[in-house]
Amino acid sequence: MADQLNVGMIGARFMGRTHSNAYTKVGQFFDLPLQPVMKWVCARDGDETQAFADRFGWSKSSDDWEEVVADKGIDLIDICTPGATHAPIAIAAAQAGKHVFCEKPLANSLDDARKMLAAVREAGVRHMVNFNYRRCPAVSLARQMIAAGEIGEVRQYRAVYLQDWLVDPSAPMSWRLEKEVAGSGAHGDLNAHLIDLARFLTGDEITRVVGDLKTFVTERPYPDGSGAGIGASGDSGKSGVGKVTVDDAAVFLARFAGGAIGTFEATRMATGRKNYNRFEISGSKGTLAWNFEEMNTLEYYSTAEPTNRQGFKTIMATEPDHPYAGAWWPPGHLLGYEHTFVHGVRDLIQAIAAGGDVAPDFRDGAQCVAVLEAVESSAESGGWQDVERVE
Amino acid sequence: MADQLNVGMIGARFMGRTHSNAYTKVGQFFDLPLQPVMKWVCARDGDETQAFADRFGWSKSSDDWEEVVADKGIDLIDICTPGATHAPIAIAAAQAGKHVFCEKPLANSLDDARKMLAAVREAGVRHMVNFNYRRCPAVSLARQMIAAGEIGEVRQYRAVYLQDWLVDPSAPMSWRLEKEVAGSGAHGDLNAHLIDLARFLTGDEITRVVGDLKTFVTERPYPDGSGAGIGASGDSGKSGVGKVTVDDAAVFLARFAGGAIGTFEATRMATGRKNYNRFEISGSKGTLAWNFEEMNTLEYYSTAEPTNRQGFKTIMATEPDHPYAGAWWPPGHLLGYEHTFVHGVRDLIQAIAAGGDVAPDFRDGAQCVAVLEAVESSAESGGWQDVERVE
Amino acid sequence: MADQLNVGMIGARFMGRTHSNAYTKVGQFFDLPLQPVMKWVCARDGDETQAFADRFGWSKSSDDWEEVVADKGIDLIDICTPGATHAPIAIAAAQAGKHVFCEKPLANSLDDARKMLAAVREAGVRHMVNFNYRRCPAVSLARQMIAAGEIGEVRQYRAVYLQDWLVDPSAPMSWRLEKEVAGSGAHGDLNAHLIDLARFLTGDEITRVVGDLKTFVTERPYPDGSGAGIGASGDSGKSGVGKVTVDDAAVFLARFAGGAIGTFEATRMATGRKNYNRFEISGSKGTLAWNFEEMNTLEYYSTAEPTNRQGFKTIMATEPDHPYAGAWWPPGHLLGYEHTFVHGVRDLIQAIAAGGDVAPDFRDGAQCVAVLEAVESSAESGGWQDVERVE
Amino acid sequence: MADQLNVGMIGARFMGRTHSNAYTKVGQFFDLPLQPVMKWVCARDGDETQAFADRFGWSKSSDDWEEVVADKGIDLIDICTPGATHAPIAIAAAQAGKHVFCEKPLANSLDDARKMLAAVREAGVRHMVNFNYRRCPAVSLARQMIAAGEIGEVRQYRAVYLQDWLVDPSAPMSWRLEKEVAGSGAHGDLNAHLIDLARFLTGDEITRVVGDLKTFVTERPYPDGSGAGIGASGDSGKSGVGKVTVDDAAVFLARFAGGAIGTFEATRMATGRKNYNRFEISGSKGTLAWNFEEMNTLEYYSTAEPTNRQGFKTIMATEPDHPYAGAWWPPGHLLGYEHTFVHGVRDLIQAIAAGGDVAPDFRDGAQCVAVLEAVESSAESGGWQDVERVE
Repeated sequence: MADQLNVGMIGARFMGRTHSNAYTKVGQFFDLPLQPVMKWVCARDGDETQAFADRFGWSKSSDDWEEVVADKGIDLIDICTPGATHAPIAIAAAQAGKHVFCEKPLANSLDDARKMLAAVREAGVRHMVNFNYRRCPAVSLARQMIAAGEIGEVRQYRAVYLQDWLVDPSAPMSWRLEKEVAGSGAHGDLNAHLIDLARFLTGDEITRVVGDLKTFVTERPYPDGSGAGIGASGDSGKSGVGKVTVDDAAVFLARFAGGAIGTFEATRMATGRKNYNRFEISGSKGTLAWNFEEMNTLEYYSTAEPTNRQGFKTIMATEPDHPYAGAWWPPGHLLGYEHTFVHGVRDLIQAIAAGGDVAPDFRDGAQCVAVLEAVESSAESGGWQDVERVE
Repeated sequence: MADQLNVGMIGARFMGRTHSNAYTKVGQFFDLPLQPVMKWVCARDGDETQAFADRFGWSKSSDDWEEVVADKGIDLIDICTPGATHAPIAIAAAQAGKHVFCEKPLANSLDDARKMLAAVREAGVRHMVNFNYRRCPAVSLARQMIAAGEIGEVRQYRAVYLQDWLVDPSAPMSWRLEKEVAGSGAHGDLNAHLIDLARFLTGDEITRVVGDLKTFVTERPYPDGSGAGIGASGDSGKSGVGKVTVDDAAVFLARFAGGAIGTFEATRMATGRKNYNRFEISGSKGTLAWNFEEMNTLEYYSTAEPTNRQGFKTIMATEPDHPYAGAWWPPGHLLGYEHTFVHGVRDLIQAIAAGGDVAPDFRDGAQCVAVLEAVESSAESGGWQDVERVE
Repeated sequence: MADQLNVGMIGARFMGRTHSNAYTKVGQFFDLPLQPVMKWVCARDGDETQAFADRFGWSKSSDDWEEVVADKGIDLIDICTPGATHAPIAIAAAQAGKHVFCEKPLANSLDDARKMLAAVREAGVRHMVNFNYRRCPAVSLARQMIAAGEIGEVRQYRAVYLQDWLVDPSAPMSWRLEKEVAGSGAHGDLNAHLIDLARFLTGDEITRVVGDLKTFVTERPYPDGSGAGIGASGDSGKSGVGKVTVDDAAVFLARFAGGAIGTFEATRMATGRKNYNRFEISGSKGTLAWNFEEMNTLEYYSTAEPTNRQGFKTIMATEPDHPYAGAWWPPGHLLGYEHTFVHGVRDLIQAIAAGGDVAPDFRDGAQCVAVLEAVESSAESGGWQDVERVE
Repeated sequence: MADQLNVGMIGARFMGRTHSNAYTKVGQFFDLPLQPVMKWVCARDGDETQAFADRFGWSKSSDDWEEVVADKGIDLIDICTPGATHAPIAIAAAQAGKHVFCEKPLANSLDDARKMLAAVREAGVRHMVNFNYRRCPAVSLARQMIAAGEIGEVRQYRAVYLQDWLVDPSAPMSWRLEKEVAGSGAHGDLNAHLIDLARFLTGDEITRVVGDLKTFVTERPYPDGSGAGIGASGDSGKSGVGKVTVDDAAVFLARFAGGAIGTFEATRMATGRKNYNRFEISGSKGTLAWNFEEMNTLEYYSTAEPTNRQGFKTIMATEPDHPYAGAWWPPGHLLGYEHTFVHGVRDLIQAIAAGGDVAPDFRDGAQCVAVLEAVESSAESGGWQDVERVE
């Protein structure tokens, strides 16, 4: 029997559910060197949290994250809370000698992100930020193909992350619309994913950006607690309308260190697009394109074939020799959103057991925040902005 | 805390894994009147079965299904074995007063299916055959739309279920290629799904058929136990080549009681198609089309709109008001193959708790076998064949 | 300057327009050994026909096809009339020593088709039946690929030709719905195309069939002359409702001489499908699929690639080294429906100049009628039917 | 018989062919108040031009555009030459009292464009710039739908025009790669189309931009005259390599007067994309998307439907009540690239006959150049740039 890895998870909403599911399933479908044990779940509302614990199989619940971090029996702290709280929890966890698994974006400011990175490095613990889309099998495959030179030199990167849950002006206020809590809107939530994917897929860094942020609906009603979905929250205790202090849409142009150029767009106002996280990467010898709404397939064009046989090929990444896919079902039996979290937890556990690194780590997370901040600066200054380099 | 429903599962290969996963997850994502408890898993190889039990959280393992059926503490027998063994297990389970959940096709002969139906009726237990594709949210939605008249009168039904895992002539022998065990090939395996979906979606019955069965590769090597995938099996203990005694492809034309006509094709020889289970239903006022390889979306055309605004609409069935979808993730966060099993188990548990019926039941399963048999008779006789009606 | 080829065209409705356009354009985009000259157009209504001649540039109009056939200055008779008149016109034309270009299906009966074939052979003239879809660049490419072995041995052929212009029960009567004129409905109109494509693409012959014909709307109003579209006709001079004496839908199973099996469906009742002429051909090493509604692209799957790089590839057949495409525009600048006719006329003219054969010729046309008739016989007899072989 | 409109066309390469085809066909498929007569074609190489005239049916050829403009019998001058020559020809034509039809972009500088606009206004002649993509039926339909409020308020505009004919570093030099002749690269060639479509579709103006231009391959071999395709040219008379002085890719962010934001990308380096001219317009009530490579269809999402019936609808714009489509073939019988030119010529002829305006006119053309120039300025200055307004 494998040794145990005791987990304390902070946060029990959307991400809390995806992580709980991942801990439940990872050992059923992958051979693990350490077996995760779901010890503590922690969130603000005690009764709700206990119900959550019962449902997903956490041994204990708490409404005090410091209690969880202080528990000597815990090996891994998993942070699923809004961005503003990532830094204090992660730093405390590292100082207590825990490994840290943190939702994205790593922090609401580069300053916080740097502090978090320093803390985990000083503590010598494993650290990972959960950019889950890296671990769609089709996306992992894309990375392998680019690294193997299958599209040649990367020249143009185009990425959009389109959602539409704020199109309706009666969609309620939530923490995701408040700058002090969320840091930013579509920018930090969705561009964070796009930036991480761009870094992951190209193996290159974004060095300069120019961007534009836009809020289309500037006031929204406070919720009555009846909502569901990405931005749902309990009764806010407030009434009337609140001011939206984050962007609805964020677009930017980018230059990469290696000479490529890119366009990026994140929005929650793209009517009809639900979770349309898409990239298309043009290289000197081929192109790769992918879209989460068809997450199991990767589009690939190669100039290596005869000109009258070239075309975009739809690779269904469900074969046993595709990343992660062999652990699940036969070819063509599709995976879904939640599998990306299982894959992340699996890789984290392997790294912890091996004492090695796992990507994306807090440096990756901090570099992503550096790009996000540069775009925000650019949107204020009206010109191109250099991106700070996090070492 | 909900009362318990103690489950004994027979079979621990591909379907055993999908069912185990379903029991694990169903209570985390749905509110249940009874909580399933994973008591026994039973399969031929004892050591493997114990490892399976450990991995998926079954309390006990056995290599004797009669032992499991005899356990008075068991409420539900779940049958995941090859078709030839469905009848004895199901009948014994019913006679022991257990509810029965059975993989498809219900039986390898209509005669067996009728006996199974008689047994569960006499015992007064709940019975369900697991045609899982009914419970893709997009498919359930299609049924709702047809029942509501949204495509008018159904006129033409076209269905194909295309796989390709036997295209390679070196793909090994398995029980799925032996008529005595599997009953038939693509026909019983895949046409069974198509027939069930046709009955479910149209609410109508197939009354006459004419068909053709074809085996393209007639001999295959016995496996060495190294394989994976749909037809994988352990070392067969045999060497050399075995004779394939089932069809690789099975096609038929159908007439429905209500006046519609249909075409059906099942094959494991459709190079490049992995799990391409597709229907297109033309009605007097609209059309619905779906394909498992894009399982989260349903195509809908309606003549109710102005002629210059008509078109096929891609409905992504991940909204809170789509069947089953609200239990999972926000819109656009895709579900996968395994979710269909969770939905089936959820509906079965609800039916057991309520003492009511659940579809598809053993009568549905038997009617499907009646169509399968009529096609086989037709393929021998060379002419149209009436389908027996199971009451 | 190239020599002239003087053309007399009989018929001036839908097909008359496509052929007129072809004669206008062919010399502008292709280098021709003979320059077609648009001499006579002939149709029933004299005034309308003269207007048609003026519009499309025919020198003269007539309402008497025998006058045109008798004109010693005419080299090629082009038959665009309903099927029932093909035989008398083609036979007279051949006997007058004219080359004959005939719309599909070649004839309404195999007997007529054989007589036409005999006549053109005896006269030693060139003969071609216009199955235009062979000459979509993507379809021609598919034929080249199959002939080169790029999908291996053909095993399964699936074809549908779906239209919906008869879904509306108020769509009016026309000659296309009268058996005495049109021969059959969707069957002769659309299955004729599917059968020809199957023969062309596989290079094989259909030897046995079993089929089903169905009429869903059995009575329709006579037109008032206001209509447009495929089935449009002038004022019929009749009032009230007429009896539809042809099929709305025709489906059949087929066996090929080389061992392949096939499914075929033609219908004018597939709501939302406008001109959805599709094939998917599964071979032992690959698959090809195409659909007219995306006519510029061909789908190709090959097992020659590594398993984790396989996928369906969309080849856009607009490159200079694709069939016919180089004569037109740069890559990606799409061609349309009418181009297929230009390509046919070009190949016919080349054959006439060279004194060689051109495909599909009247033997091809007659073999297609033989398959159509066998399906009709099967629909009456209720069993499989052998297809006569036309030598 | 309609009166004549005598045409003199300057330029006889790619665009010369598309325009010649348009004049040939427009009267066959549309009822016209004036019949275009193909009088003069003019281009540099006399022999080639005469061959061109013979092939397409122009009465006379010339290698001196001033001769053509001076011909009193000519009513319309059609300019198909590279951008640098547009201004002198158009201004001379206007001063000679001819109507002017000019290829895009209108001019290589805003200054030239303003002079051209002044000239045609002063002469009181009709003027049109040929942004042909406006007249794809699906694009015209999109404009109608936006104008009718079917997507509500336009919020986000995203456009890409992707080609790949310069990916190969051995693709030769041509006038299109020389700044003095072409003005710019992908920017003027392709972004010109995107900008015009954005203005047309939204009915709004772009007021501020920030952009980036990039050349990936800076030197190319001079051609030997053997080439074909978009950038083909005769033997340049030069040898060795030439310096590429235009951009390969041009990207920019935009703000619209009405509050919308946009992203634009033009490139000839998007491997695998042949003529991928795409827009997606997110509005407060719906979305419209289109891509030339599937030019016959328009994607439409509307929030007016119930939430569980919403989806992207593929409208095939080939119905009789779609713009332009009724003049051609039955529904589903696709149109191609060249039809857009026929539609433009038809609308121009109608405007000339009626003495009215036609869009896009030279003011539209000049405004497009204003946006192009602002992007170029921004690429130099590194910041946002206001767009000049052309009245």
